[in-house]
Parts: sequence; C-alpha cells; structure tokens
Amino acid sequence: RFVNVSRITRKCKLGEEQVSSIGRGLCVLLGISVDDTPRDAEYIVRKILSLRLFEDESGRSWSRSVMDGNLEVLCVSQFTLQCVLKGNKPDFHCAMPAELAQPFYNSILEDMRSAYKPELVKDGKFGAFMQVHIQNDGPVTVELTSPSSLTDLKQMAKQEKQQQRKEKTRAKGPAESGREKGSQRSRQDPSASSGAEGDVSSEREP
Amino acid sequence: RFVNVSRITRKCKLGEEQVSSIGRGLCVLLGISVDDTPRDAEYIVRKILSLRLFEDESGRSWSRSVMDGNLEVLCVSQFTLQCVLKGNKPDFHCAMPAELAQPFYNSILEDMRSAYKPELVKDGKFGAFMQVHIQNDGPVTVELTSPSSLTDLKQMAKQEKQQQRKEKTRAKGPAESGREKGSQRSRQDPSASSGAEGDVSSEREP
Repeated sequence: RFVNVSRITRKCKLGEEQVSSIGRGLCVLLGISVDDTPRDAEYIVRKILSLRLFEDESGRSWSRSVMDGNLEVLCVSQFTLQCVLKGNKPDFHCAMPAELAQPFYNSILEDMRSAYKPELVKDGKFGAFMQVHIQNDGPVTVELTSPSSLTDLKQMAKQEKQQQRKEKTRAKGPAESGREKGSQRSRQDPSASSGAEGDVSSEREP
Repeated sequence: RFVNVSRITRKCKLGEEQVSSIGRGLCVLLGISVDDTPRDAEYIVRKILSLRLFEDESGRSWSRSVMDGNLEVLCVSQFTLQCVLKGNKPDFHCAMPAELAQPFYNSILEDMRSAYKPELVKDGKFGAFMQVHIQNDGPVTVELTSPSSLTDLKQMAKQEKQQQRKEKTRAKGPAESGREKGSQRSRQDPSASSGAEGDVSSEREP
C-alpha cells in the first residue's frame, strides 16, 4: 500500500553482484500491507506505469510517464515502508507476512509486465538483504498510497453517502453541488483531485 | 511533513561534483507541507535522530539510532513528496512555497545540529537540481509523518474528547479504560503505538 517511487535517469542497480539494474525509468520500493487486496495491486500498477514524472522532448516537466517514454521499472519489495513506531523502535506487524507477501509481490510484477512490456520490468530478490544503489534524478521522490484499507473503505462509504445526498439535492435543484464536490476530497487518497483550479506549482523544478 | 528516510551503510552523495556526502547513517528526503509548523519540525528532528534503524554490536536489528552510533545524517529538501495526483499528473500545491520552505528547511537543519553534533549533519543545496546517489542498505526505507495538519488536529481534538470522556469514566470507576485506549490509535500518526503486545516481526530482516 505504501509505495516509494524514485525517478532515475542514469542508473539504479541492486546488489554488488548486480542482481538487477535499469537505466532511465523508475525505482519502486513496494511496501505491502496486511490488508492489501488485488484492488490495491491493480491501482499501484496502473499509477506506476502512468505517473507523469518525466519531461517531454521540449523539456516540459511532469508530462510523460514510463509508458509514454518506453522507460524501465525496477521493483523492490520493502516491508519497512509499513513501519509504525513504538516510541523510537520500528514495528512491522502492519506489513503482510513474507509467505503471503511474496506471491502478492509476484502478482504485482506479473500484472505490470502484462500491462506493459515484460522486458522493461525488472525485479529484485524478494526478501533478500541487498544494497540498492539509487541515483535519484532531481531528486524526484513520490509516495503512492492505494485507496483501500479499513479507514479508506469507511471514508468511501461516507463519500458514497454524500454522493447520494448530493444526488437527492440535485433532484430537488442544482444548488451547492460544487461546494459538496470539494468536501469529498480525502487526505488518504492521493489520487483525489487537489481541488485547486490553478496548477501553478506543477511546473516547479525540484 | 512527509519524510523519507533511507538507511545508508556505505555512501550517499549529492551531485556529480559531490556537493555533500555521508558514510554510515541516514539519507533524509524532507517534504515540507504548506501547513507545517515548528512543532512538525521538532517532531521530525527528534524522530530522525532517535529512530532505531541500525543493529548493535551483537547484530541485533532495530536497536540503535543515529545518535546511539555517532552516525551521519544527510538532509535533502524534496518538495515532490508533497505531491497529490490530479489523475496521473503530480500537483505540488500542498508543498510549502520555496520562499517559505527554505528558511523552514534551514531551521530544521539548525535544530538537528544543535540537538546532535553539527559536523555529523550534512545538507544539500536547497531547491537545486541534483543527482542524489543513495546506496540503500537492506534496503531499509521508512516514511515519517509529523502529527500536525488540519486532519490530524481534528483527530487530536477527537482524541482529547475521548480522553476527557475516559477521565470522567475513570472518576466514576476504572472500567473500560483499556479498551478506550486502543480506540485512540490514529492511522495518520505513525508514532502511535501499534497496539500489538507481541513484537514478533520487529526482528525480521528486509
């Protein structure tokens, strides 16, 4: 559910013996949570492939995705992203146990390969201790959180209710629908619209 | 508010001309949000220095912090961590504008240096375009989120009310206080106790 994406222009490699490596593309650290479902996997795969983190030929930032540019993806499992702190000690009981996380991780890779070009999707050794050499370009680092989880499901249920209420209101008259739309934004859902009409900062350089 | 921490055993360096570099320690990517306050900075500084991401002499994982081991910290500003997605395009209106974020970033560095050893805290060039070479050891990557923000403030207000209610209940009799304690856990606050009594997974290797 928590995914860390770094933009790579030159190189990202795994291990001293170079288990795996990519050139231009994305290095993805995948943190799989106990309550992740295929729906989360589907969301994450789609976002990784479609996220516009690269510039186009004219140098316009945030305009091209991995798929647009025929770029590579390197996926590494990273259960420590599911860490919660007990004081200053990390605790990982929210991470999916390895025996379940490994097939889940493999299915994410399979989905990504079949949605894109299999030869451009690289992976690490699941659960292995490795040195990951990331040459982060920018730097540009983005966190992705898939929408589902108990909290989010509750949130979604709430939003659905709001939607229903909105539709009722609309049936009576069109007033206020704009304002209500804004109130449905969820902090937990990074795919939710920012609500800002202007897009001033999106051309900003790191 | 969103902070990405990578464990480094060998090297992390900034830029081709090596603007800055560290050996064993933590590489910290700092995403400062529009609504961050000195309280967030204080929390983040404390957690970075005290997080137990390193092993001790006997090889016991998750037992030593940067401070315990006299290790280095490299801090890099990274506004892209504040990204929200508008479809597949990143939008950064939640990031603190550069003219405010720069002094905020500098104050975080100052706080960290005065809380620790100034010579062990390195930084990058604020807002500069750089190649960040991260040799992530494990890999071990952790996300830190400071507790404040509008949503969290609401959450805290709610918790305070619960606390008050609990204290009222306690005044009447001690029943149920344990159960209520559990219900105060917040998904947004990674420092919140996991609630699990066992700590089985915390010795797990990446």
